[in-house]
Amino acid sequence: MARVGATPGGGVERLALSEADRQGRDLLRRWMEEAGLQVSVDEMGNMFGRRRGREDSLPPILAGSHLDTVPRGGKFDGALGVLAALEAIRTLDDRGVETRRPIGVVNFTNEEGARFQPAMIGSGVLAGAFSLPYAHSRADGEGKTLGEELERVGYKGEVSCAARPIGGYLELHVEQGPVLSSGGVSIGVVEGIYGITWMRVVLEGEADHAGPTPMEMRKDALVAAAKVVLSAQSLPRRFGGEMVATVGSLAVEPGAINVIPGAVRLTVDLRCPDAMRLEQAQEILINDIHNAARCEGCRVHVEHLWTSPPTSFDPGVVTAVEAACRELGYSFRQMGSVAGHDAKYMADLGPAGMIFVPSQGGKSHCEGEATEWEDVERGGNVLLEALWRLAEEG
Amino acid sequence: MARVGATPGGGVERLALSEADRQGRDLLRRWMEEAGLQVSVDEMGNMFGRRRGREDSLPPILAGSHLDTVPRGGKFDGALGVLAALEAIRTLDDRGVETRRPIGVVNFTNEEGARFQPAMIGSGVLAGAFSLPYAHSRADGEGKTLGEELERVGYKGEVSCAARPIGGYLELHVEQGPVLSSGGVSIGVVEGIYGITWMRVVLEGEADHAGPTPMEMRKDALVAAAKVVLSAQSLPRRFGGEMVATVGSLAVEPGAINVIPGAVRLTVDLRCPDAMRLEQAQEILINDIHNAARCEGCRVHVEHLWTSPPTSFDPGVVTAVEAACRELGYSFRQMGSVAGHDAKYMADLGPAGMIFVPSQGGKSHCEGEATEWEDVERGGNVLLEALWRLAEEG
Repeated sequence: MARVGATPGGGVERLALSEADRQGRDLLRRWMEEAGLQVSVDEMGNMFGRRRGREDSLPPILAGSHLDTVPRGGKFDGALGVLAALEAIRTLDDRGVETRRPIGVVNFTNEEGARFQPAMIGSGVLAGAFSLPYAHSRADGEGKTLGEELERVGYKGEVSCAARPIGGYLELHVEQGPVLSSGGVSIGVVEGIYGITWMRVVLEGEADHAGPTPMEMRKDALVAAAKVVLSAQSLPRRFGGEMVATVGSLAVEPGAINVIPGAVRLTVDLRCPDAMRLEQAQEILINDIHNAARCEGCRVHVEHLWTSPPTSFDPGVVTAVEAACRELGYSFRQMGSVAGHDAKYMADLGPAGMIFVPSQGGKSHCEGEATEWEDVERGGNVLLEALWRLAEEG
Repeated sequence: MARVGATPGGGVERLALSEADRQGRDLLRRWMEEAGLQVSVDEMGNMFGRRRGREDSLPPILAGSHLDTVPRGGKFDGALGVLAALEAIRTLDDRGVETRRPIGVVNFTNEEGARFQPAMIGSGVLAGAFSLPYAHSRADGEGKTLGEELERVGYKGEVSCAARPIGGYLELHVEQGPVLSSGGVSIGVVEGIYGITWMRVVLEGEADHAGPTPMEMRKDALVAAAKVVLSAQSLPRRFGGEMVATVGSLAVEPGAINVIPGAVRLTVDLRCPDAMRLEQAQEILINDIHNAARCEGCRVHVEHLWTSPPTSFDPGVVTAVEAACRELGYSFRQMGSVAGHDAKYMADLGPAGMIFVPSQGGKSHCEGEATEWEDVERGGNVLLEALWRLAEEG
């Protein structure tokens, strides 16, 4: 699969519904058909490959992720979860193992959000978070809509993309952070997905000549902004961990070497697995922002851009993943996912969970994204084992 | 003069060697001729209007400033000093006063540096700070050179623009800061011009996903930069006043809401009337910058862009200005000029000094730049009185 959209730098570029994505989908469809799965595609282009269960009318256990990538992305982000699910089914076949419930492989459309926003729109429509017309109308940078592009690549399916019961959902994914890799741990048993809050802060002071304006008469928006940056950075420490805070963008006006900054626009990305603490941290930050602005004589406007509440994965699924790690003798640790994944929306449809494998150096969304093949194998084995448990017992 | 290049917003736009500047120069030339002055123009377009002295071979006392403005600038910055000098000579004529030394009005070319860089290039060439060929080769944003534009507007004169002895130089100028205006003081007796140091700081951390990268593993260039901003701001406090420090520009890469800043480029503008303290403050700041970078795991590069050493005005000229204030009964205070002026270069040619009048609200380089007419009159009277003292006794 990594040959489809391979980049010269050793990565992969398969933007959602691009020509490369079409080729990747065609390849997955062929592999699923060769594995004897019943392939279907829904109105959002989400692809399913179904393996029958002994009690075939029960809601299926799904496993998968996404084949789309960011520009100049890596081989593992997304594709690992889809292909490991397929491989798990092949292994069940090889061993002649039947399961009580049906099992499905799934490839969700446009998880990355690199071409069409919002991200995770395929699983989002399935879970009812977005309407189908809204999703189809989303346009890329060139004005092409997701709906048009689905038709162009031949993956606007006929199956309704609407909430339906599932027996469970499991997603194997690279961690995209350095926790497992730096700790020498093979498997992350993911207990949930952090809540995320995005804010925009506009500080307005007064642009003035950097020479003749005495320090005590200044209204320097960048000085206020610097205090906001340091306040945000200190939040996780003040809240005792399990929180990250980032000021990722900051723009200064007018931005000349000899002019006091008159205005600064910055953004804050705040994440925490606990909804209450996320809200408290946000309140404290907003308080700090107002203090910094007051202190520097600036006006301030805080705009709340977006919040994604935390997701707690199903205890039964988390237990099944942990049990698989124990049985296989792999080192593991419980952790939260700080990034969003399709599993977030799938958790609205039924019991869901995730399995992380280490990202070397914590790197992802780049051509150098890498996971040791031994870790890939371990992750695949945990997925197989947990999938079997859920499909048999769940 | 304010009608030449008047803007709809009540300001003036007379960029150096523009059509408006040519009209302003023509008007000044006519006024100088009408006042019986002997007009000359040098190779840099600097204009002089000479009034004979009793001992006419003595080096003249010059008074003036510049007629060029920034884009959408004000009526007073520069023009005040040129026109007040002319008015002082007219007043001497009206009263039938002769002076021992000759007196000259001067209008320097391209003081602002808004069209051609560097600023103060007309007085700079006269003082030997820049060569004539260098100055003539300076190009504006459209590639037109200063030399070509001098010829186009008819102000490439034949008088050599080279260092020659002067008896003294006096420049009346608006303060461009809020000190006089907020203190209710009419006249600033300017003792010198602050030294200025410009630095560029590049901090390089590591761009990473703002989600899965734990706080303690980050190399966030913006956090380091925020510390630099606050360190710079605190320098004047640490050095006990008479210093200003500004981070005027700051750019973040890659600058996305969910990406940890990988690199920040910022500039520092540091000014102090004392060369020693300026250097000490710079050393302390550089030390702070390295500490901030180390603390956040960033690499750092500090580039020294430019230093203009402090200028101390001639004690005799400063005393003459102060004596004029006392005799006229005007409120005054000693102060430094934090911005550069032509007087800086003229101080290399002979005894120089400046007189400030209040800028309402400290505003300059904008259409709303304003000085009360009463203050303009007081400034003109101080110039007249000090000019007379220097020309008679100096």
